[in-house]
Amino acid sequence: MTDRLPHTLRSDALDNRERILDAARALFSADGLDVPMREIARRAGVGPATLYRRFPTKQTLVTEAFADQVHACRVIVDEACADPDPWRGFCLVVEKVCELHARDRGFTEAFLSTFPGVADVAANREYTVRAVAELAQRAKETGRLRPDFVLDDLILVLMANRGIHTASTTAQVAASRRFAGLVIQAFEAGPQRAPLPPAARLASTAATRT
Amino acid sequence: MTDRLPHTLRSDALDNRERILDAARALFSADGLDVPMREIARRAGVGPATLYRRFPTKQTLVTEAFADQVHACRVIVDEACADPDPWRGFCLVVEKVCELHARDRGFTEAFLSTFPGVADVAANREYTVRAVAELAQRAKETGRLRPDFVLDDLILVLMANRGIHTASTTAQVAASRRFAGLVIQAFEAGPQRAPLPPAARLASTAATRT
Repeated sequence: MTDRLPHTLRSDALDNRERILDAARALFSADGLDVPMREIARRAGVGPATLYRRFPTKQTLVTEAFADQVHACRVIVDEACADPDPWRGFCLVVEKVCELHARDRGFTEAFLSTFPGVADVAANREYTVRAVAELAQRAKETGRLRPDFVLDDLILVLMANRGIHTASTTAQVAASRRFAGLVIQAFEAGPQRAPLPPAARLASTAATRT
Repeated sequence: MTDRLPHTLRSDALDNRERILDAARALFSADGLDVPMREIARRAGVGPATLYRRFPTKQTLVTEAFADQVHACRVIVDEACADPDPWRGFCLVVEKVCELHARDRGFTEAFLSTFPGVADVAANREYTVRAVAELAQRAKETGRLRPDFVLDDLILVLMANRGIHTASTTAQVAASRRFAGLVIQAFEAGPQRAPLPPAARLASTAATRT
């Protein structure tokens, strides 16, 4: 029995870690990153001491909670940039990033947030924005992406995507797909495109705030 | 002095009414319609008894809080339907309704909500949805609105519009205008339009839930 005790403890510790991360994702998704640490501990069913032993700061918790999403986002962006057809790559970014965010609204909050010090998520946003800027430039040069597209439009789309709420993740992803499909057709260059209202300044604000 | 007392009381009562309505709009906008009545009373700086004397139920409060928006929405829809060019009327609905909702996110929550018994707002939603259905049909017949547009797309746009958050109402309206401009171009029929992902079922759900 004494031999198995440390093993049991390690299992419990792992279990606690996952419960904390699940609780954090659920609460970040519902209430944003401002949710208090004690609320996360309560939802996870652990004491505050356990929470702080695992995650000494909110930043470490946010970083761990969205590590998978940050990685997935990076894979999407790299795949899109490697596409020999930049317009196809651009469409892939819009589709896949909308879907990624539709599956986890907490990640959208983190991605768009000005919450200080969430280094990995902020770095991911900057990486994404820079890569898409370069991709968009190439897509414009092929004549497929409308010339008046600006990076703020991508932030606008991500903000809009988070407003879509449905009863289930399946319905959420389906609605987000329809939305991304519409957005892509709005971004496509065409001979009779009317001028758009001026772009909103969103990405630049987000970038300077971090 | 005694002559002026009833007048003073009436002024206070009017003042309380406006404070309650302002508090309700602010809280509905931030937290949705589920916010407790006692929270609204606290924010308005009145006692629960005063709140319930003015607004015996949450329904009466929601109805009063959004009476102006319901009226404005109706004016937009009627003006759009009266336009001899149904596509221009359709574009007007998208632009103006997005702007109306961008100015008051609480109204979006009420409009899209399945909160039971908010009769005026629910009636306004049904009126809007029916009028736009008829307008969209006529706009399709002129060949300007894409034939695969469905009413759920309008609900999708309103949901997306509420996801756009900026620091000020001015910036909010500007961002929402850009968004509405993009959406209109996505809805416009064109010779090379690719098929869209399937429409999400949103409007029908909202309609049957009320």
